[in-house]
Amino acid sequence: MSTPSSGATARLGRLRSADAGGAILVLPYDHGLEHGPVDFLEHEWGSRPASILDLASRTGIAAVAAHLGLIGRYYRGTERNVALIAKLNGKTNIPESSAPLSPLTGSVEEAVRAGADAIGYTLYVGSAAQERDLRQLADVRRDCERLGMPLVVWSYPRGSFVDAAGGRDSLYAVDYAGRVALEMGADVIKLNIPRRHDPELGAPPPAYLELEDDRSLMARRVVESCGEAAVIFSGGSQRSDESFLAEVRLALSAGAAGMIAGRNIFQRPLEAAERLIAEMSACAREAGGAREGPA
Amino acid sequence: MSTPSSGATARLGRLRSADAGGAILVLPYDHGLEHGPVDFLEHEWGSRPASILDLASRTGIAAVAAHLGLIGRYYRGTERNVALIAKLNGKTNIPESSAPLSPLTGSVEEAVRAGADAIGYTLYVGSAAQERDLRQLADVRRDCERLGMPLVVWSYPRGSFVDAAGGRDSLYAVDYAGRVALEMGADVIKLNIPRRHDPELGAPPPAYLELEDDRSLMARRVVESCGEAAVIFSGGSQRSDESFLAEVRLALSAGAAGMIAGRNIFQRPLEAAERLIAEMSACAREAGGAREGPA
Amino acid sequence: MSTPSSGATARLGRLRSADAGGAILVLPYDHGLEHGPVDFLEHEWGSRPASILDLASRTGIAAVAAHLGLIGRYYRGTERNVALIAKLNGKTNIPESSAPLSPLTGSVEEAVRAGADAIGYTLYVGSAAQERDLRQLADVRRDCERLGMPLVVWSYPRGSFVDAAGGRDSLYAVDYAGRVALEMGADVIKLNIPRRHDPELGAPPPAYLELEDDRSLMARRVVESCGEAAVIFSGGSQRSDESFLAEVRLALSAGAAGMIAGRNIFQRPLEAAERLIAEMSACAREAGGAREGPA
Amino acid sequence: MSTPSSGATARLGRLRSADAGGAILVLPYDHGLEHGPVDFLEHEWGSRPASILDLASRTGIAAVAAHLGLIGRYYRGTERNVALIAKLNGKTNIPESSAPLSPLTGSVEEAVRAGADAIGYTLYVGSAAQERDLRQLADVRRDCERLGMPLVVWSYPRGSFVDAAGGRDSLYAVDYAGRVALEMGADVIKLNIPRRHDPELGAPPPAYLELEDDRSLMARRVVESCGEAAVIFSGGSQRSDESFLAEVRLALSAGAAGMIAGRNIFQRPLEAAERLIAEMSACAREAGGAREGPA
Amino acid sequence: MSTPSSGATARLGRLRSADAGGAILVLPYDHGLEHGPVDFLEHEWGSRPASILDLASRTGIAAVAAHLGLIGRYYRGTERNVALIAKLNGKTNIPESSAPLSPLTGSVEEAVRAGADAIGYTLYVGSAAQERDLRQLADVRRDCERLGMPLVVWSYPRGSFVDAAGGRDSLYAVDYAGRVALEMGADVIKLNIPRRHDPELGAPPPAYLELEDDRSLMARRVVESCGEAAVIFSGGSQRSDESFLAEVRLALSAGAAGMIAGRNIFQRPLEAAERLIAEMSACAREAGGAREGPA
Repeated sequence: MSTPSSGATARLGRLRSADAGGAILVLPYDHGLEHGPVDFLEHEWGSRPASILDLASRTGIAAVAAHLGLIGRYYRGTERNVALIAKLNGKTNIPESSAPLSPLTGSVEEAVRAGADAIGYTLYVGSAAQERDLRQLADVRRDCERLGMPLVVWSYPRGSFVDAAGGRDSLYAVDYAGRVALEMGADVIKLNIPRRHDPELGAPPPAYLELEDDRSLMARRVVESCGEAAVIFSGGSQRSDESFLAEVRLALSAGAAGMIAGRNIFQRPLEAAERLIAEMSACAREAGGAREGPA
Repeated sequence: MSTPSSGATARLGRLRSADAGGAILVLPYDHGLEHGPVDFLEHEWGSRPASILDLASRTGIAAVAAHLGLIGRYYRGTERNVALIAKLNGKTNIPESSAPLSPLTGSVEEAVRAGADAIGYTLYVGSAAQERDLRQLADVRRDCERLGMPLVVWSYPRGSFVDAAGGRDSLYAVDYAGRVALEMGADVIKLNIPRRHDPELGAPPPAYLELEDDRSLMARRVVESCGEAAVIFSGGSQRSDESFLAEVRLALSAGAAGMIAGRNIFQRPLEAAERLIAEMSACAREAGGAREGPA
Repeated sequence: MSTPSSGATARLGRLRSADAGGAILVLPYDHGLEHGPVDFLEHEWGSRPASILDLASRTGIAAVAAHLGLIGRYYRGTERNVALIAKLNGKTNIPESSAPLSPLTGSVEEAVRAGADAIGYTLYVGSAAQERDLRQLADVRRDCERLGMPLVVWSYPRGSFVDAAGGRDSLYAVDYAGRVALEMGADVIKLNIPRRHDPELGAPPPAYLELEDDRSLMARRVVESCGEAAVIFSGGSQRSDESFLAEVRLALSAGAAGMIAGRNIFQRPLEAAERLIAEMSACAREAGGAREGPA
Repeated sequence: MSTPSSGATARLGRLRSADAGGAILVLPYDHGLEHGPVDFLEHEWGSRPASILDLASRTGIAAVAAHLGLIGRYYRGTERNVALIAKLNGKTNIPESSAPLSPLTGSVEEAVRAGADAIGYTLYVGSAAQERDLRQLADVRRDCERLGMPLVVWSYPRGSFVDAAGGRDSLYAVDYAGRVALEMGADVIKLNIPRRHDPELGAPPPAYLELEDDRSLMARRVVESCGEAAVIFSGGSQRSDESFLAEVRLALSAGAAGMIAGRNIFQRPLEAAERLIAEMSACAREAGGAREGPA
Repeated sequence: MSTPSSGATARLGRLRSADAGGAILVLPYDHGLEHGPVDFLEHEWGSRPASILDLASRTGIAAVAAHLGLIGRYYRGTERNVALIAKLNGKTNIPESSAPLSPLTGSVEEAVRAGADAIGYTLYVGSAAQERDLRQLADVRRDCERLGMPLVVWSYPRGSFVDAAGGRDSLYAVDYAGRVALEMGADVIKLNIPRRHDPELGAPPPAYLELEDDRSLMARRVVESCGEAAVIFSGGSQRSDESFLAEVRLALSAGAAGMIAGRNIFQRPLEAAERLIAEMSACAREAGGAREGPA
């Protein structure tokens, strides 16, 4: 990897939402593979890829992340105001694995042909399968550089060692996952907002114990460990509007470049989803846009 | 591998520090991947790749070793007096593995494009995964030769057999690791200064017992086993200035071509780090520069 | 071609002479192929590639440009303070051709292995063979980008059309040649300082007639046509010290990034050559270094 | 594989020692990788690759076998009377493996560039990893044929099945290993001189029981199983001059094409090593040269 | 092209004749293609490739140069003391061409498989086809480097411009041809001993007129223009023993590394040829071996 090409820079800019003051607002839509249609049962519109693209097109959502199968079948290239992040690896949640690894579901070249503006990759930091994961990511990054595609890494702490250090959302685990993504060459890093470790699982390295502060400070620390890469925090599983918007404010005030929210969008009635996106965009505008950075 | 090309020779020369009388002084900076941000918690400047490059640019440090992700995001090519060693494989420390192997995180060609002057590779001698490790290293070396890039091998004894022979830092283990790197074609070999074996773990081959002498003589033996490849010794984990400089003197008087020091640099206040580098450079100048050799 | 990589930027920096305040000072040494040994007859030292490398190593000359055959036989990689521009195409002056084209004499990959810091290419703008020339140059530029190598284009107006428009050194012809090199992706462009057209040959487009001013203004115009690419002007065939240094001052005051001088160096006694280089370096320092720019 | 090319035949001829009446005399020098520097502890000269090459150059040793890393660093191409066998696979002895496989440490093309005259490959017949081993060997042989390089196979019986049949040096095991190498296309096969099976380990197929005769006859049988491929027997671990020379006589009288001796050479004082080589060469001359054959 | 590999150095050494004090003595045998069997009409043995190989094997001739067709049909690899130069391009003398170019008749890889020790290439300096010739040579040289094969260039001035400058054997023409071969990366350069220009054809550049001295000084000048490449002079068409040996002495005293003689060998009775080779070898021994140099 070398200096970002003009292509990577130009395409990265398309992940930023003008409506949200330049924040990166991503709607991930790979749940059909990762969780199955169970995620769409309550609100049927959410099961229809065309509805998702249409929603993104009409709102402050800047980009939709999906596998090439969906992109190939639903994306026409005529949709306005929606960038595509081609998610290039993924897996189901059956069977559960103690050594998770998301195999490739496509290539960077296919993503370019399909009109994607960025590449998405899920990395399981701490997995017993990390040897193949890091190598696979390095290959994807090389192709991203060759074709001027920005790289968005979903960096997830996983595995028994992570659990034994206090769980996958602990500051220690999230901080490490963010840094690994930076060292591997991510342009944008998707993380969960860290929280205090779970003492029933285990304890992180001592130095992290005293850093376990309020979530806002922990979020800020993680953003700093990611350096000049842009951080987007996950909205996580479904919650109330108020609770979700509080997360958005916390994330942006901590220096995140934006948010990534799926279930909090499509697990609502369509109108409620649109309203929430509008409020999220307003939050982001008020937060003065995203933090400075290369993204 | 054949006779070193003029490209490999010219680039190897850039790892030598004029300020240190020609000794190779390397600042490794892959801890974010290998250990996580925990290594940077105490001194925040050390978490910033730009600060590391700037420090190397202003001091006797001749080269910084980092993964392509960091190089791509932070190295501009306008920094003066700092050569880059692109670290091409690595892993996290989670999970701990009884069969460690660092997968590739990039390619020699990407490193050349990024402006690297040398390639770094971590080899785990004694790991149950050595079959893949040696093959992977052979492929990297072939590309190094094709593009005139010198090869720096971090040669680490690891695994249960190494432990059962008295531990990873025993003279036996380090001596073997150095020789393996030479046979595989390393231009520069990074080793720990050997020490007496740990009798609680086990015992090395009898012939090594009588060679377990003072550390200076053990270091010299290891340097000789590496033949015409240049040896650089590790400064190891953080220690006092006096203790660190004693290691530097021991290493250089034993015939090492230089030192590699990371945590002893960035786990100090910036001013203390600069002072220590100046003293290390002075030690090296006084030691009459590095030993003769191909590097 | 996209944004210059950090590798291209770093290597381009090596063409700048610290001794000359950052100006690019190149000694071309492909005359043995282009003209034959006749250029070396008067001063025997100039026929010896080792003497040329040694001279560049000891003086403000930052880079030597030569074909891979000479580089392979004479460059050891241990020479200090001399960057190499691998000249990748060339031809003899026999037979004279009305459709000149310099065929490839090597590849970018070979140049990288040999330790070159930049690639040199001769383009004949206006030649009846330009179809193959532009295609060949595009291929070289693609490999330059892949391996982070800056591209120096010798851009020469040639052919009957050029003659009929007033000659190869007219403002019209040089201005066009410079712009073609910029459009093709040159990082550095080697041009002759333009002069008034030769009315016995023909006349340039009318708009150029009124631009034919003093040589300093014409040189400045050409530099501006090359935009952010760095221009280096040729010293041309042998002339007196005073006359040569006047050219240097004219070139640098017109905004050139530096000079390229071969016959004015090696067609003098060695001591006179060293003295002239020292004076040229002083001129460049006084000129406040080279103009700003990407090179 | 087809009829040996003229290149393979010419290069194979260089493994024959004129001083030894045309016998193949090989000094293997891969112990630094296979066993570590422990093999060199007693006689320091043996740890230096340059001393090994020099010794071979001055004596009846026709060829040295080493990995490309050593060849690249020590072989200059100016040494007289010494052919090189590039050992293309190898492993350490840590950890011990129940499924040994020596991964590739280089390629046939690299060996040709380095100036090697033959390729060496270690095959573990009976290893649980033989599936990959045979495939890897087939690939190496294909490249050998493409580039006219003779193939020397170190054919070692290994694994629990071999043990259960009476051990790795039994006539049954060695005979099988030799034949496998022939079927895979070896030009030269390195074997240990077989001995009676170890009844404490197990028993070979009944037909082999009655063939377990004196070692000379067993050696002859193995040579015949290798057909027109040339057999060289190993000198094994260190023994007295008399004992070693008896092995040489036994081997050559049994029809072997020559000997391969490492530790019996470099684990002696240099003068003793030279004397032993002279005596081994004399033995070979007296034995009337090696048996007839393609090698 | 980079620093010569150990393979290129080792193989180049095989072109030197021990019997001739280290001089390079080559018997070219491509006349069947270049001139047709007419060259063999007088002495029938010379038409038989096997006789040529046998002669070289028994005398001080170190190498035979031939096309792959002949090598494949006649060379067995069992011939002793004869190295092969695979001539990789050639042409007939019908039709005569004003733009001569010898197309490829094989590849470097085929030559390696056949057991060749060097590659031969004919370059027509000054030909109207030089564009394709230089490019073709550059490709051959790249493969030579990849496979460690030394490159012998037959560098022939040709074409109307060469004629108009005084003929193909003038000092000017030969001097230029030698230098072009050096710049293109030849290890060994085959030239004719230059003579005064033919004023009926035309005149060389004035600077060469005053250099037209006795043939010994002109030969020395040409050797110096070839720098560190080894020059071998041609024996030319058939002449008397005395006249031929005078050429040999002149060549070696002028600094040539050796001789190349075909028609002066095989256009004599076999016994006379053997006697002449013995005398040529003696001349070379007396001349103190070949000049110093990389070959």
